[in-house]
Amino acid sequence: MSAVVNIGIIGAGRIGKLHAENITKLVPSVQVVGISDVMMNDEMEKWAHSLGIGIATKDPSDLINHEEIDAILVCSSTSTHADFTMASAKAGKHVFCEKPIDLSVTKGLEAIKVARKHQVKLQLGFNRRFDHNFKHIHDLRTAGKVGDVHIVKITSRDPAPPSPAYVAVSGGIFLDMMIHDFDMARFQAGSEITSVYATGAVLVDPEIGKAGDIDTAIVTLTFANGAIGVIDNSRQAVYGYDQRVEVFGSKGAAQAENDRPTNVTLSTAEQVSTDKPLYFFLERYEDAFVDEISSFAEAILENKEVVVSGEDGLEDMVAALAAGKSLKEGRVVTIAEMKDELGL
Amino acid sequence: MSAVVNIGIIGAGRIGKLHAENITKLVPSVQVVGISDVMMNDEMEKWAHSLGIGIATKDPSDLINHEEIDAILVCSSTSTHADFTMASAKAGKHVFCEKPIDLSVTKGLEAIKVARKHQVKLQLGFNRRFDHNFKHIHDLRTAGKVGDVHIVKITSRDPAPPSPAYVAVSGGIFLDMMIHDFDMARFQAGSEITSVYATGAVLVDPEIGKAGDIDTAIVTLTFANGAIGVIDNSRQAVYGYDQRVEVFGSKGAAQAENDRPTNVTLSTAEQVSTDKPLYFFLERYEDAFVDEISSFAEAILENKEVVVSGEDGLEDMVAALAAGKSLKEGRVVTIAEMKDELGL
Amino acid sequence: MSAVVNIGIIGAGRIGKLHAENITKLVPSVQVVGISDVMMNDEMEKWAHSLGIGIATKDPSDLINHEEIDAILVCSSTSTHADFTMASAKAGKHVFCEKPIDLSVTKGLEAIKVARKHQVKLQLGFNRRFDHNFKHIHDLRTAGKVGDVHIVKITSRDPAPPSPAYVAVSGGIFLDMMIHDFDMARFQAGSEITSVYATGAVLVDPEIGKAGDIDTAIVTLTFANGAIGVIDNSRQAVYGYDQRVEVFGSKGAAQAENDRPTNVTLSTAEQVSTDKPLYFFLERYEDAFVDEISSFAEAILENKEVVVSGEDGLEDMVAALAAGKSLKEGRVVTIAEMKDELGL
Amino acid sequence: MSAVVNIGIIGAGRIGKLHAENITKLVPSVQVVGISDVMMNDEMEKWAHSLGIGIATKDPSDLINHEEIDAILVCSSTSTHADFTMASAKAGKHVFCEKPIDLSVTKGLEAIKVARKHQVKLQLGFNRRFDHNFKHIHDLRTAGKVGDVHIVKITSRDPAPPSPAYVAVSGGIFLDMMIHDFDMARFQAGSEITSVYATGAVLVDPEIGKAGDIDTAIVTLTFANGAIGVIDNSRQAVYGYDQRVEVFGSKGAAQAENDRPTNVTLSTAEQVSTDKPLYFFLERYEDAFVDEISSFAEAILENKEVVVSGEDGLEDMVAALAAGKSLKEGRVVTIAEMKDELGL
Repeated sequence: MSAVVNIGIIGAGRIGKLHAENITKLVPSVQVVGISDVMMNDEMEKWAHSLGIGIATKDPSDLINHEEIDAILVCSSTSTHADFTMASAKAGKHVFCEKPIDLSVTKGLEAIKVARKHQVKLQLGFNRRFDHNFKHIHDLRTAGKVGDVHIVKITSRDPAPPSPAYVAVSGGIFLDMMIHDFDMARFQAGSEITSVYATGAVLVDPEIGKAGDIDTAIVTLTFANGAIGVIDNSRQAVYGYDQRVEVFGSKGAAQAENDRPTNVTLSTAEQVSTDKPLYFFLERYEDAFVDEISSFAEAILENKEVVVSGEDGLEDMVAALAAGKSLKEGRVVTIAEMKDELGL
Repeated sequence: MSAVVNIGIIGAGRIGKLHAENITKLVPSVQVVGISDVMMNDEMEKWAHSLGIGIATKDPSDLINHEEIDAILVCSSTSTHADFTMASAKAGKHVFCEKPIDLSVTKGLEAIKVARKHQVKLQLGFNRRFDHNFKHIHDLRTAGKVGDVHIVKITSRDPAPPSPAYVAVSGGIFLDMMIHDFDMARFQAGSEITSVYATGAVLVDPEIGKAGDIDTAIVTLTFANGAIGVIDNSRQAVYGYDQRVEVFGSKGAAQAENDRPTNVTLSTAEQVSTDKPLYFFLERYEDAFVDEISSFAEAILENKEVVVSGEDGLEDMVAALAAGKSLKEGRVVTIAEMKDELGL
Repeated sequence: MSAVVNIGIIGAGRIGKLHAENITKLVPSVQVVGISDVMMNDEMEKWAHSLGIGIATKDPSDLINHEEIDAILVCSSTSTHADFTMASAKAGKHVFCEKPIDLSVTKGLEAIKVARKHQVKLQLGFNRRFDHNFKHIHDLRTAGKVGDVHIVKITSRDPAPPSPAYVAVSGGIFLDMMIHDFDMARFQAGSEITSVYATGAVLVDPEIGKAGDIDTAIVTLTFANGAIGVIDNSRQAVYGYDQRVEVFGSKGAAQAENDRPTNVTLSTAEQVSTDKPLYFFLERYEDAFVDEISSFAEAILENKEVVVSGEDGLEDMVAALAAGKSLKEGRVVTIAEMKDELGL
Repeated sequence: MSAVVNIGIIGAGRIGKLHAENITKLVPSVQVVGISDVMMNDEMEKWAHSLGIGIATKDPSDLINHEEIDAILVCSSTSTHADFTMASAKAGKHVFCEKPIDLSVTKGLEAIKVARKHQVKLQLGFNRRFDHNFKHIHDLRTAGKVGDVHIVKITSRDPAPPSPAYVAVSGGIFLDMMIHDFDMARFQAGSEITSVYATGAVLVDPEIGKAGDIDTAIVTLTFANGAIGVIDNSRQAVYGYDQRVEVFGSKGAAQAENDRPTNVTLSTAEQVSTDKPLYFFLERYEDAFVDEISSFAEAILENKEVVVSGEDGLEDMVAALAAGKSLKEGRVVTIAEMKDELGL
């Protein structure tokens, strides 16, 4: 392998295109050799070539079986994630798979096992671990600055709710939205979640309730290392994307505030005001989308552990499923119980 | 009654002295006519006279039955709160009673009923409602600035743990510490708590665990108005007293940061640093201790509702007891269930 | 002398009353024995007695010659400051004199000399040195945290302009307003001003210009220790009293932001807003008014240097006069030149 | 002309390379057709080709005379700026010229006149106007949010001093460093500087003094619209690059704080700390370097005024020269006087 990772991207939707453009412009350690999409057309092909991507195809096998390709980015629709992951692994390609690896835990586990068996790297797209603020909190903790972790607090609120139609097929707030926070909680606690208790309500949009989901939720967590935690989610923070993390421990606390477009304060006779937070995930995690790919490349080139493994994704999903069960049954649900139920 | 409320203070311990000095210096609408303490001695008497307090006695009846006294401040030991409250009410005196009104909900309720029957004001010493930050959040909400309340978040951490000996007789973290936060939660939500779920751990001091208590806790709340909430407590925040509140709603969010001794930032080659939060409740709530008395006097003089009623104290206590039960039984506990059990 | 300083207050106008109330309530080391005012009347007398002040008189000699009085607070009109200071000093009383000690530098100097000769303490009322933020910056510097001072920056803006009538007799912006900042500059630089260059404009109110004054000014400073500095003044900051100080040096920078009523942030769809600064000097320097008196008492009781000496006041005044001259002549003016001109 | 501006870059030093990489990756409206450098070698050529730049040459005429090139970026050494600007303009190419356009005002003016005559756009590389914070302040002002400008305050401090050798040939602190702030002052005041008064000192490094320069400076400004202003510079802020701007006016104030790597706060038993400012101009103005080129392209494609004109650069230089003269002669220097002296 050269000092550059040659990759193929399966799926040229919004996220596939984002990765293609990011890599081309901002990740020197990665080269996009080809991109595939079942809807590949002239326009898409032209766009690919403009980025210097040689192969633009309808057939993902053209990438999976390409001799010079070292790794595959799976950016296709969720239902195909596990299959493309397995096919790529079997072909000896490392895999970066957008989350979730599958809507079924069983199939997700199967994909993980295949990757393990073929000894390829498997990284999932939980990009928030690469956010400059959250990574810094993580680094402060692992450097011992907050001591033993006692409490992890995560605030995660979207600027505007998705359509009820989207909600209906989303898997629900825990699998669709809070799964990112379960991943963050595990990342920041440095420990596995052992139980969850979920409270929720429909306060933003009654249509979300009619779709069988909630739009506001608080989940309490316990961790294997004894720490406890809490996540709150809302589908609508009218002031913008609210993404904050706090890790509190025996030696202190590390807290991340939101990022804002500018650091300007305007003081008038009426008030003192500052910018609202960056609007949504594309703005807030703009750099994180780039850094997760750089990190994946580094893991391959230097044969290191990936920062977000398939196993991480599985644990996150189990936590999300447990939260759903907790909300439904109005009781605390242990991860052990949930894994038993899932046959894990 | 004159435009000044004449009061008698029962109990000249730390809190009684604090009120006496505050009133004398900073509450023009109140005059301290007398103070009683079972341990009254020459030194205490001298101190009282230096403040211009005419009566210094061992016998609280000297105050309760004093013709010119309009109101009694009950600052004696907890076990006497309800009795002094009732005796004062029966004598037609308004009562400001330090929290809790009693360790028994039943007796607390009895005291409240006596106060009601004799049509005297009864205010409890939950002074945080008078904190400038928290009061401002409350005022923003009632002015409609945050819209309908969706989430209430309260962080409440002490700078250093109490002794295990204190913990053993404290009634536990929920009754001793988090009761303030239950009161704050109800105040900020503008609604009653309907259920609680408690998670806790012994992470600060194993001796606290041996004393049968926890030192770190997260409690999830639901409110009658549909909102949900969460409180986290720790007996030890090494950086000082951490007292923050956030109310999130349909139109926005109001958040209070900690108060600090100064607004100075020091930037050096090593770091950029600011002051730690004010050390503990005497520093942080210095003004709130004064304002709760002014507010009590105003309620009397203008015949208005008190800001913290006996009923408030009772609701807070039920929430605390429910949290204890929730922790013990590992399940959500409704306030209705708890009230049934308590015979309320 | 007892452990309490017995004082008499000359002048019962706004500032004299403020000191009387502050001392009575909040300065245990000082007792107000008497207060005099040329306009003393029944109402004022009643007010004095209500504070426990025994003597209320028209004649300041009743205080100056009172055997049990240790110190005099000169709070009368400016034209009488120096005379009362001298009379008090001659009677062996320590003196706290509101600023300025006199509108004439010569007479001010005379008063200082009399105080020196009679070996009494003389403190001036530059209360900003006692502000919690500015004192902290001073303490950081003297503790070596900012290293050698390179630049001192002071922002000082009033919320609203005074009336043109007031401006006409005020002595002008430099003597009336910026004199506080010259004192602050010397305090924070830890060094004497050696030259000033003033720029100014009439931007707030043309009437101020017609009264022969300016309302907006920037003055550059050089200090004896080599540091340089800058002060900006405006008679009108519509967002409130803007009082900030920055000391920049070889090891770092210490900066003080404004104080605000609360630390609450409100985030809405329109904006993120916080409180405006405290409105004006009575709000911002509320504690500083108390602390300057405590400090004066401490200087007397422990025979220490006062924090703001008569000489300080004189230096501040020379700087203000030099700034006026600089503005008028459009050139830098040295303090040495100004002192020569003043015969100092 | 296509919807893309084809450019040639003269000079492949640090800044030329930076622009080449920025444009290639981040400015879709610009295409780099060629780059020239007198030291062009194989390595540089390889680097150019890796960016997709077709022409890598020693001879700038290859670019200036290239038919398909619309505009030239002059990134060569300062002494060649004016000549390349004129040659490019004569060839009908728009010019983006790094600052300063020339060390001689006369020659700078000549270049500007040539550009005017040949009706090409001429933009100078004062990139701070494109900084997100400073641009936002500018936008707030032009939107009327601060009202009439009364005071402009600029803090501009480098993290570490340049070598004395550099200082010796730099043209001095006003031409080398503060020229950026003169440009910012004019940009934010929305008005031309009419006079300057400079104070300075050697406080950071005595070697800078030996090289005939100062390392710490404060300059007071007056503007044609009546506003006044002040700039402070230091060659060494040990806590990092300190770049702040404040515009104060009749309706309020807009202030920009520094940017920091993260928004994380660490609270420990010792202190509460945050990140230091971004280290230096490459970090702080990373996006501004990109945006100035996008803006240049937009001016060409849409035939709009450039944001920083040659005339701006000339005004900035005159202010810098006036400041030098003011410091040397210890008096205020008007821009009119300086222009007279320069024959402008």
